[in-house]
Amino acid sequence: MPYALINKLTAKPGQRDRVAQILIESGNLFDDNAACIFSVVSESAQEANVLWVTDLWTSREEHEAALKQPELRPFVEQALPLLEGMPEQIEIRPIGGKGLPQ
Amino acid sequence: MPYALINKLTAKPGQRDRVAQILIESGNLFDDNAACIFSVVSESAQEANVLWVTDLWTSREEHEAALKQPELRPFVEQALPLLEGMPEQIEIRPIGGKGLPQ
Repeated sequence: MPYALINKLTAKPGQRDRVAQILIESGNLFDDNAACIFSVVSESAQEANVLWVTDLWTSREEHEAALKQPELRPFVEQALPLLEGMPEQIEIRPIGGKGLPQ
Repeated sequence: MPYALINKLTAKPGQRDRVAQILIESGNLFDDNAACIFSVVSESAQEANVLWVTDLWTSREEHEAALKQPELRPFVEQALPLLEGMPEQIEIRPIGGKGLPQ
């Protein structure tokens, strides 16, 4: 069953571009992972310090496995101190539309 | 430049499934539109009446043109009375990650 995520991250003032760069670099780890259908990093157009990450994976289990790869840890350790609080995860269940695996 | 959208829709109590169906059916209009990279309809796992739609398009102009096609109107007219208020659109600017056009 496909698994989707929306994450909202709030950077400390002046740190959004750096956090975005870390997210994009760390996301390269998913490029060759067929279980990651997309993982798009976006700036908010409305809130100066906010980033949104929208993900679609083939399953929750595949996503969890990808998060456990040790190569990801240095990126998490770089990014967390640059954030205000923790990322806010919006849990969603994809049910249809274009881009979902058949 | 790619263009991304996050929409949050709140259905009237008991109407979420019907609204989701309308969104999925109307989204079929984008299936053959190469400018629509994805448009995924999801249920909130946290809020009983909420739906999220996450879109990625090749450009803002292509998205606007797609919204203007007359075939879309009956779906909008069916869905709007089933919503609490208007859809909340979160404006974002995609800057990187997997799934973006190169």
